[in-house]
This record gives sequence, C-alpha cells and structure tokens, in this order.
Amino acid sequence: MSLLGVGTLAFDTIYTPLECRERVIGGSATYFAYAASFFGPVRLVGMVGNDWPEEHFELFRNHGIDTSGVLRELDRKSYFWCGRYDRDLEDRDTLEIQINGFDQFDPVVPQSYMDSQWVFLAAAAPSVQLKTLAQCRSTQLVVADTVDMWIETEKADLLKLLQNIDGLLINASEARQLTQHNNLVKAGRAILELGPDFVILKKGEHGCLLFEKKDVSAIPGYPTDAVVDPTGAGDSFAGGMMGYLANSGDSGHRALRNAIAYGAVVASFTISGFGLDGLIPIDRKAIDSRLVQFKQMLKID
Amino acid sequence: MSLLGVGTLAFDTIYTPLECRERVIGGSATYFAYAASFFGPVRLVGMVGNDWPEEHFELFRNHGIDTSGVLRELDRKSYFWCGRYDRDLEDRDTLEIQINGFDQFDPVVPQSYMDSQWVFLAAAAPSVQLKTLAQCRSTQLVVADTVDMWIETEKADLLKLLQNIDGLLINASEARQLTQHNNLVKAGRAILELGPDFVILKKGEHGCLLFEKKDVSAIPGYPTDAVVDPTGAGDSFAGGMMGYLANSGDSGHRALRNAIAYGAVVASFTISGFGLDGLIPIDRKAIDSRLVQFKQMLKID
Repeated sequence: MSLLGVGTLAFDTIYTPLECRERVIGGSATYFAYAASFFGPVRLVGMVGNDWPEEHFELFRNHGIDTSGVLRELDRKSYFWCGRYDRDLEDRDTLEIQINGFDQFDPVVPQSYMDSQWVFLAAAAPSVQLKTLAQCRSTQLVVADTVDMWIETEKADLLKLLQNIDGLLINASEARQLTQHNNLVKAGRAILELGPDFVILKKGEHGCLLFEKKDVSAIPGYPTDAVVDPTGAGDSFAGGMMGYLANSGDSGHRALRNAIAYGAVVASFTISGFGLDGLIPIDRKAIDSRLVQFKQMLKID
Repeated sequence: MSLLGVGTLAFDTIYTPLECRERVIGGSATYFAYAASFFGPVRLVGMVGNDWPEEHFELFRNHGIDTSGVLRELDRKSYFWCGRYDRDLEDRDTLEIQINGFDQFDPVVPQSYMDSQWVFLAAAAPSVQLKTLAQCRSTQLVVADTVDMWIETEKADLLKLLQNIDGLLINASEARQLTQHNNLVKAGRAILELGPDFVILKKGEHGCLLFEKKDVSAIPGYPTDAVVDPTGAGDSFAGGMMGYLANSGDSGHRALRNAIAYGAVVASFTISGFGLDGLIPIDRKAIDSRLVQFKQMLKID
C-alpha cells in the first residue's frame, strides 16, 4: 500500500482572466501528494530551495505526507513558474520560469522509501525518471507522466521509460506529438504498443480516455462552474487516481475505472481555487460524496 | 410517436486530410432523418432543387422516412456546401456555399404532418423555425438546433424561440457566444434560464453536457478510431436522440440520458464514412450492440 510520488515543488505566479496570484504553492509533486494523501499515506521525493517555508512542510506532514525524501538546497531558490491562462481557462502561456538548477536534479529515493510498491513519476526528463525508478525495488505499479519537451528532446529515453512502466499519463496534444496520429484513439493504442499496460490520455475539462490492452473507455470531466485556476488539475488527477489504487491494492480494469473517476473528482476540487486552496478545506468524505454524485450523473439505464 | 424533422437537404463537397469527395448527400435534415429512422418512422420537411436525384428519395422512403413534405423547386439547384477539415478533423473552413435561394425557404408543414408530437428544428433562421413550429399543433417535445450566424444576426428571434421549445442543441463555442460565459457549465445553465427545459451542449468528439432544471450531467463521445468525415455528426446525434425519445414516448431524465447515449453511438457510425456511407450499411441491431458496449465502458462500480 506504500505510495511514492516524485516531482517538483515550486512557487507559481498565475494570471487568470479574473485574478493574479503570486507565488502560490505549486509543482507536480505538491498537487500529486496532497491529492493522493486523501486516500492514505504518501511518500514524497522532490527538491526545494532556501525560500521554501517550513509551514508548507507542515501542511504536507499534517496531511499524511512523508517529506523526509524532500531535499532542501540552501544555496538556491525554489523552482518558480509564472503563467497566464486564456479566457476559457483552457490554454496557457508560460511567462517566466526560474529553473534555479533544478534541471540537474537527480532524485534520491531514501532507503526508507525503497520498498514503495506504488510509484508515480511526475513529468521530468525521462532519463531522470528512469534513474529514479531504478532505486525502487518492490514496485507493483509504476505510472509516469510526460510533457512535450521530453518527447522532442529525449525521445529515445522516453521510449525506454515506456518499456519500464505500467501506465502512462499524457495529454491529447502530446499523445499526437508522440505517435503522429491525429485521431486520439489511434494515438492511445499506438502508445500501448510502446510498452505500458495502460495509457490515460488527458483532455482537461473534457475528461480522459483510458486505454488498456483489451479495452478503450472514456470518462467526462466532472462538470463544474467553480473553476478558478486549472493549474495542478493533471497532477491532482494522478494523485486521486494513484491514491485510490494504492489504497485499494488493486489495479485491474474495474479498479482503474474507479480510480480515474476519483482522479476527475479530486481535480474538480483542485481547480476551484489557486494552489492548494481548493483541496485544503475538503476531506475524504467530500470527495466520496462528489464521487457518488458523479457516478449518478454518468449512469445510463 | 410521430416524429418530424425540418432542415436542409444538400450536396456537400468535403475535403479531409486524406480524401476529397464531391457532391455527397448531406444537409441537416438528411442526417437527422436517416439517423432517427433507425428507431421508427420519420416525417421530413425540407426543400431540394432540380438536381436532387430520385434515388435519394428512394433511399429515404426505403428507410421509413416520409418525404411528402419535401418541396422540389424545379427552377433552381439544391443547396450546396463545400468545406475543408483540419488535420485533427476538429475544425473546418467553409470554402463555398451555393444558397440557391434556400435562405428564403419558408417550410410548409403538410396537413398530414400537423399532428406530429416530436419535432426537431435543425439550425435555420430562428424566425423561420418559429414559423415552422407554429404549424405544428400537437407537439409533445420540440428540440431545436442553432448556429453562430443566428446568434449574431437574429438574437431577438432566437430568444423568442428559446421560450417556445423544450430542448436546445448547441455547440460549445456557440453557447459561449450566446451567454458570454466562458465556463461551459455556466453557459449551459444560463441558456436554461432563457426558457428551455433542457440544453445539450455538444463538444464534438468530447461528447456533450446535458443541462436540466435540477441536473447537469455529461457523456463522453463514443471513442472510435474510425473517423473519416465528421460532417453530420451533430445532426445524426440529434436524430439518434429524438428517434429514441419519440419511439420510447418518454422525455424524462432517464430517457434523456439514454437518448444522448444513443445519439453519441449513431454519430459514431455517421463519421465512419462520407455522407450517409457510415449509416447505410448498419441496422438497429448494430446500434444497440454498440450501445451495450458504450454503457459497459462508461460503467463505474
């Protein structure tokens, strides 16, 4: 049942059409870990700079997140991203990135984490994802995410990674980029051929497609008008999904379907606020209650 | 159980990234009527020119479509549309339209159709849709479609139409245009406020959102890699939906949910070929069988 998440911890400055928020807590590992920790304990591997406040660690620890795998680099600042969303909150432009040396980050999985059975590798250089994975010795299910940059610059390593993971999370445009198929069903199936047992093709507010060796299925996004900031939707989807799977100890077809429904529900809370503002006020009960409602609205006689 | 469809009958020349097909059978009423007629008889109102071949009428009649309401204008050619799809088969540009006077078409509902209980008004000038509707005297459920042009040029009549119909079909960008809400859930709810009992917000391959007074629900598109030509997807969705509703005699929440699932399934057949090529080879059994599969893939424990 031990779940490990590896990714970035960052500060984000976010412009939406209605509001700008400066230096909110962000990063793939932040969203993943907080979302997953509604379902059970989470182990976190990442790196922060000298500007990362202790209260952010406390927030994690108070929510069942083990932060002993987070490295604190005292000679630099944390990763910083600044972006602006379009009017539909669908696309975004990056206005500024301060990498602060985190591109050379080689995650170290502490001895105490090496027996982690459930592993999520947030988007990073595939060579780094592979090195991280090599440190995990008891994996039952490994899921990774990737982004356009790595498809462009590290495709060979990405293909190697795909041979070594169970599931891939990827968004629609990246699936097209990776496979050269414009049709998303063809793209998803083509990625399956590259190695993983399942592929989750993310389509933002339109939900996702789930590809397994024998099945393709779909789930809509949870329909909500409470959308403040979409940042972190994908990583908290991953958190909800992996948290549910690790907690259930099952990764079969039915469990995966349930897991993506949980992922969609948790993401719907995430986007209702900036940073973790949408997740901090809720509890597992609120998630379960929205899941019941979501299932109800998906039901066809 | 009497179902009436009113719209255009046309020839389409369609460019997709892989193929071009000239002057295939098209038009909103064509797709609607053929799709709906898998579920029961359909009455058709429309207009064609002197170039409309008799075999197209035979095709309709052999599929349970009453064409006695189709006017044949001997002094002009049929409506013609030519368009080109982008590489993802998502967006399209209109390259040519030959209206041939059909903008002045005032549909005449024959005496024998006036008792139609289930009515679909495909996209047309809202003033024309209202005039058509005024000729129907026994309506149980009226659903209309609209497009961007009418929101821009005949908004007052469109708002009047919305007060006189039960359901509206509208695509995502048009819902935003009509309501000035970028969030689709807000947009759908705002349209409900304008009059109809339900709104179906179409999102192409991403499925649709269904808004009712007390509910919002969602359904994904049927995931398929057999996409040849998306033309007619929306109108055959409407046909599958209305055909199912008229045939069941029910338009409550559960029936609507089933109906949009049928709509999605029928549309998935439509887009597998040009014109009616995707629908002509199939029968109701093929639709039911894909619906079972679709329900299965939507199921969450």
